[in-house]
Amino acid sequence: MNSDISSKKLFALLLLLVFTLPVFAARVDTLSTYSGLMKKNINAVVILPEQYSKGGQYPVVYLLHGYSDRYSKWVNTVPAIKNQADRLNLIIVCPDGNYSSWYFDSPVDQKWQYESYITKELVPEIDKRYKTIKDRKGRAITGLSMGGHGALYLAIKHQDLFAAAGSMSGGVDLRPFPDSWSIKERLGSYDQFPDRWSANSVIEMTHLIKPGSLALVIDCGRDDFFYRVNVALHDKLMYQNVAHDFIIRPGEHNWDYWANSITFQLLYFSNSFNKI
Amino acid sequence: MNSDISSKKLFALLLLLVFTLPVFAARVDTLSTYSGLMKKNINAVVILPEQYSKGGQYPVVYLLHGYSDRYSKWVNTVPAIKNQADRLNLIIVCPDGNYSSWYFDSPVDQKWQYESYITKELVPEIDKRYKTIKDRKGRAITGLSMGGHGALYLAIKHQDLFAAAGSMSGGVDLRPFPDSWSIKERLGSYDQFPDRWSANSVIEMTHLIKPGSLALVIDCGRDDFFYRVNVALHDKLMYQNVAHDFIIRPGEHNWDYWANSITFQLLYFSNSFNKI
Amino acid sequence: MNSDISSKKLFALLLLLVFTLPVFAARVDTLSTYSGLMKKNINAVVILPEQYSKGGQYPVVYLLHGYSDRYSKWVNTVPAIKNQADRLNLIIVCPDGNYSSWYFDSPVDQKWQYESYITKELVPEIDKRYKTIKDRKGRAITGLSMGGHGALYLAIKHQDLFAAAGSMSGGVDLRPFPDSWSIKERLGSYDQFPDRWSANSVIEMTHLIKPGSLALVIDCGRDDFFYRVNVALHDKLMYQNVAHDFIIRPGEHNWDYWANSITFQLLYFSNSFNKI
Amino acid sequence: MNSDISSKKLFALLLLLVFTLPVFAARVDTLSTYSGLMKKNINAVVILPEQYSKGGQYPVVYLLHGYSDRYSKWVNTVPAIKNQADRLNLIIVCPDGNYSSWYFDSPVDQKWQYESYITKELVPEIDKRYKTIKDRKGRAITGLSMGGHGALYLAIKHQDLFAAAGSMSGGVDLRPFPDSWSIKERLGSYDQFPDRWSANSVIEMTHLIKPGSLALVIDCGRDDFFYRVNVALHDKLMYQNVAHDFIIRPGEHNWDYWANSITFQLLYFSNSFNKI
Repeated sequence: MNSDISSKKLFALLLLLVFTLPVFAARVDTLSTYSGLMKKNINAVVILPEQYSKGGQYPVVYLLHGYSDRYSKWVNTVPAIKNQADRLNLIIVCPDGNYSSWYFDSPVDQKWQYESYITKELVPEIDKRYKTIKDRKGRAITGLSMGGHGALYLAIKHQDLFAAAGSMSGGVDLRPFPDSWSIKERLGSYDQFPDRWSANSVIEMTHLIKPGSLALVIDCGRDDFFYRVNVALHDKLMYQNVAHDFIIRPGEHNWDYWANSITFQLLYFSNSFNKI
Repeated sequence: MNSDISSKKLFALLLLLVFTLPVFAARVDTLSTYSGLMKKNINAVVILPEQYSKGGQYPVVYLLHGYSDRYSKWVNTVPAIKNQADRLNLIIVCPDGNYSSWYFDSPVDQKWQYESYITKELVPEIDKRYKTIKDRKGRAITGLSMGGHGALYLAIKHQDLFAAAGSMSGGVDLRPFPDSWSIKERLGSYDQFPDRWSANSVIEMTHLIKPGSLALVIDCGRDDFFYRVNVALHDKLMYQNVAHDFIIRPGEHNWDYWANSITFQLLYFSNSFNKI
Repeated sequence: MNSDISSKKLFALLLLLVFTLPVFAARVDTLSTYSGLMKKNINAVVILPEQYSKGGQYPVVYLLHGYSDRYSKWVNTVPAIKNQADRLNLIIVCPDGNYSSWYFDSPVDQKWQYESYITKELVPEIDKRYKTIKDRKGRAITGLSMGGHGALYLAIKHQDLFAAAGSMSGGVDLRPFPDSWSIKERLGSYDQFPDRWSANSVIEMTHLIKPGSLALVIDCGRDDFFYRVNVALHDKLMYQNVAHDFIIRPGEHNWDYWANSITFQLLYFSNSFNKI
Repeated sequence: MNSDISSKKLFALLLLLVFTLPVFAARVDTLSTYSGLMKKNINAVVILPEQYSKGGQYPVVYLLHGYSDRYSKWVNTVPAIKNQADRLNLIIVCPDGNYSSWYFDSPVDQKWQYESYITKELVPEIDKRYKTIKDRKGRAITGLSMGGHGALYLAIKHQDLFAAAGSMSGGVDLRPFPDSWSIKERLGSYDQFPDRWSANSVIEMTHLIKPGSLALVIDCGRDDFFYRVNVALHDKLMYQNVAHDFIIRPGEHNWDYWANSITFQLLYFSNSFNKI
């Protein structure tokens, strides 16, 4: 993980942890659940805030990883999210989206059914095992890159499950990248199945958002290769009067960007939960 | 103040305060200092975080009010900023900018010298009286509307004093509003003094920003009458490679917007201080 | 032809030909082939470079004419293309697209099947009769106006046949011109068959381009009535990350523009062939 | 030089040279001239076309290098320009612009007077020593990056000397880069001397172009950090009706881009000379 963040910044983060936070009080579980859909065990990280042991019910932020990563990537690369769970008093769940699921139910491969896995298998299991607010108003979902796409995709298709969603550097339009990151293995090639690529691109799903249903926060770095698609999504949401926070920051498609971005996304969701 | 925030949201805020924050630990001073420049006493609110009494040195966020308001407006309208000072462990100072100073040294009226007052009289006084980090890296400045203009204006002209600056719904270009909010009383009329209006508009001051000198965060509501000038400032900063966070949110020119925005601005400055 | 180019420039071209090129060494054939699809003989101009007689295999650039012209128009109006064939050592084939075929297979008139004619009848015949590189990597296609549309249209639909394509002042979106240049005779009227007009407009076919499959060069004059549709195509290709050269030049929809443009298009294809 | 171009492309270039060009006939001189202005000898590369020895008068393209390079960089990195000089029958002169002159006469350092050196010392020397067309219509100037800026800068300020000018990936607006590439050492810092930075940025010099005086060709890669400033220059020239060719290509700020771009720039100048 250390190579993902500049050592200087890591040191600054460590200083912050050591001096402002005597201990990491948050508890981190690795939860293994059996997916009946995909016939295998799948892990997830669950971060519980310090106060969890004292009782109460807690809102949950589902936090998705990017292409080529796994469920443990977020907490290993940005351990400060444990601190933020404590400060904001919320649960963070990091599902596994496999190397390249894009969080679809693949129409061409039964072994890649991650939309159904998260929404039908993981969320109920989390609600069963933990003291969560068992209502859409107590659930948010966000992620980076492939996970930014995934978070908006799942929230828009499952507004019964989520009341807030975010994206960091998200691949919110898949069509400009027909040959990248295994998307064609999940959907079939773009030139043969253009309708499928459109139907699964967030930017073409905005009409599915019920007015006022989702609190949305979308950000991207100015020098990210996903910059153009995020600006296009913002323009479309503006035109369609879909309320959303939109942030452009300095930075590229890397962990320096996401380690900073997640602090604001979690604050956004915390504010959002507090308006319930 | 109550009329500024919808009662429903106010209730939610109160609930938040009562249940998540057993006590407001932050200490709030009203500091009166004599301005030699303007020959009068001027008040400021100073919010000290809970840990202040335990020693140490603290960074300071100067938080400017808008047109027609005064130094006490922020803390009275959004008392939650006391909580945020606690959580982020920083001092908040709310200067008085008078009814309509625009934080200029007026070239036409010696009684309106608020740029000099804040930079030459107030900041040294704060550093003298309180346990602050007495360095530009420990100071940020932000504000709303007239105060958003003021914060960027003062930071750009006084990069020796500030290392971070923000604007919420700021009047970052004065020229489209030649007849509003007493600006012409401070600068002379736009048709007679166009150069003066340009020289005092933030959007025409960007060349003064030394590379890498200022951490900048600029936000505005989509339905704000200052929306266009903020987008224009963003576009110019993008073109000029001046690093900055830029946020467009739902909302208008009102306290619902600012009560939300300030939580993110303070987090931004806290992150910025932690990179020192 | 003489009226198409200003006499001054023509004189300059002639001088150029006389003094820098003592003889036109290129050989120009008029090839007549029988189209089984349209039951008639159709002519094409074939320009062979000077070195052709010495053996070897040569790449081919198919060069399409515009509305109201015919196969012999290019070589008669811009005879300098013979010189360029010599210099760049490639074959130029100028097919006949009839007065107003738009290079479609018309869905409403069996007598207009120029897509099939060129791709199924002409290209095989050229490869049979001449020493060509019999592979997509040895074939490019370009044209002007109706022929710019035609070249991109045929290349996108037949990426098995072409590896490079260009357009000069091309009609790359047909829909803004519902009543012009006999398009409605080929497709049916726009108000009755909007889907057909979209499906046959190049700007709506970009999803069919396989990643990295086509080297593309698109140009247009600033004062051309096709300027807007070409800029729109460029913007879409930029957004979709489809690599292409895009050139805006001074000029209108006339032979001054095309006599200049073709020199750069041929150099582009020559560079492209040399990368094989 | 080999590291500047991918080895695969280099191999393709080598193949091209070996098979299509039996010998490099062009003659390459290294010309050393004494600069009275800067009190030192300065080298330049001079490429003479194969036919030079047969007599006649030849047009000259001045070809400028980028930041951190020198006079020999172009011919060493892209030796194919010798072949192009042969084909197009023109002289190429590569002046030395030192590590970071930006081709200014520096107002703050007498040792950096490269505008005067090139226009008052080098051009006359070239015309004295070689069989050139001794007229503005026989001179063009272009370059890459710092040299793209330099070429447009010198042509606009010296329209008596040049009739054509180009820029590849040029730094045509200096102001967005106040801390880069030693510009501030040449001009003084941007925050202190904004007028000087504007006066020396090509984008602010367009009003100096006499109508019809300069044939202009400007290109940039889509992924170049100078992309934005080149698009801004194009937009301004379009608005001001200043005729120019503008090309956006795939690519970044590197020699793969420039080795391709120079072939088109030289063809453009050759076409331009042939219109004399």
